[in-house]
Amino acid sequence: MAILITNDDGIYATGLSFLVEAMKRIDEVVVVAPDREQSAVGHAITLSSPLRVTRIDRNGGFFGFATSGTPADAVKLAIRSIMPEPPRLVISGINLGANVGGSLIYSGTVSAATEGSMLSVPSIAVSLDSRIDGHFQTAADFARLIAEKVLEKGLPEGILLNVNVPNLPRDQIQGVMVTTQGKTNFNDFFEERTDPRGQRYYWMCGTMVADDGRRDHDVRALAEGYISVTPVHYNLTAKGFLGSLSEWRLDENWKADV
Amino acid sequence: MAILITNDDGIYATGLSFLVEAMKRIDEVVVVAPDREQSAVGHAITLSSPLRVTRIDRNGGFFGFATSGTPADAVKLAIRSIMPEPPRLVISGINLGANVGGSLIYSGTVSAATEGSMLSVPSIAVSLDSRIDGHFQTAADFARLIAEKVLEKGLPEGILLNVNVPNLPRDQIQGVMVTTQGKTNFNDFFEERTDPRGQRYYWMCGTMVADDGRRDHDVRALAEGYISVTPVHYNLTAKGFLGSLSEWRLDENWKADV
Repeated sequence: MAILITNDDGIYATGLSFLVEAMKRIDEVVVVAPDREQSAVGHAITLSSPLRVTRIDRNGGFFGFATSGTPADAVKLAIRSIMPEPPRLVISGINLGANVGGSLIYSGTVSAATEGSMLSVPSIAVSLDSRIDGHFQTAADFARLIAEKVLEKGLPEGILLNVNVPNLPRDQIQGVMVTTQGKTNFNDFFEERTDPRGQRYYWMCGTMVADDGRRDHDVRALAEGYISVTPVHYNLTAKGFLGSLSEWRLDENWKADV
Repeated sequence: MAILITNDDGIYATGLSFLVEAMKRIDEVVVVAPDREQSAVGHAITLSSPLRVTRIDRNGGFFGFATSGTPADAVKLAIRSIMPEPPRLVISGINLGANVGGSLIYSGTVSAATEGSMLSVPSIAVSLDSRIDGHFQTAADFARLIAEKVLEKGLPEGILLNVNVPNLPRDQIQGVMVTTQGKTNFNDFFEERTDPRGQRYYWMCGTMVADDGRRDHDVRALAEGYISVTPVHYNLTAKGFLGSLSEWRLDENWKADV
């Protein structure tokens, strides 16, 4: 049983190579990753077109399989079709850019780990808080530590770990904090432009704005120089609202509405 | 303030027309929807390419805006750029195919409503449990009822409603049930084929398998002929595991690991 490595920045991303080197110190690795960048694809899967798989040799670094689909597709394909037996662990990253707060829901990196967890394999997403190549080695070092820990302790069914690492040299990291998903807003807007043929088009712009500063939030931990580890699940029921919703008497109203 | 209608089956889908007719009985409507089918796109947003918007006249049915992006893009564009003021309500559907259990995470229909909720607008996703055109009128009737209810009562910040309607004539509906997201597995596999140029490709296959039968689960309610209404949130922290994870002593281990 090997470790499956994937990402959403594509098989040629630098962060993936760092993760491969770190995981090779633990066990045999299999790399199955998108053939191009797939950021912000959320938990997309490809149903309406076929998927292609190409064997890639990263010049002595590693062999891997590049897929034409999304990160979730890559994990499904790896586990259901490419690997002879399921992996011991799915690890996704090292993503260029943090996946904290509201941005979790858009994250291909996290969705790959979610897919692993849905297929009953312990899974981890690892992101570095930088938009340009940065201190990948810090993130790789922690990835190895947390991967070993997950292999030793296991994870409960339906729970994965979302890890975010500050873009700092190792000796400047404040420590490791277990966190909750913070609340954030996006102050996004669309910039309107006109193409050379006179047609309008729109670019999405804007940044994430953390809207509260609770001590245990991933956003804040990261900003303060801590490695953030959030346990994540994908049961989306808002349990706290079930009671109030029952009081809406929808069944009675529906039957009375003729 | 109007009602914003979107979907993931695209602006030409029959389910959208039924939803428009139902919402017109409540208020003014604005339709902003993908220009083609976008099923299983999850909560994808488009960052790496510009978005196009085309004004569409559905032959006396409605005017609307077709977007080149995903359902989440459509909602963002509508609220941030197309509409002069935010809508009173975002309603997404009527999707062809149920969005219950594990499939919620892949659903473009639900992600559109999630995006509405993230932008602080009360939001509803509506799906019909049929893969071919079916009893849309039943779903449209309930969509009107639940939309009126949401406009009257409001929804808490960060909570949306996921509605699934059995594919039955109205008089065969058993009633309305407030439900939780059920647990399901996918027995998916990949069918390997060879294209006319001798290259291999893969089709994703398989179906959803409900793996438990709790009375209050969306999967079961729907199968028994009830309209299912699930309150959904998008805070993904697995709170129940925070304590155990803290006992892993990650901070100590990290500092000791040199």
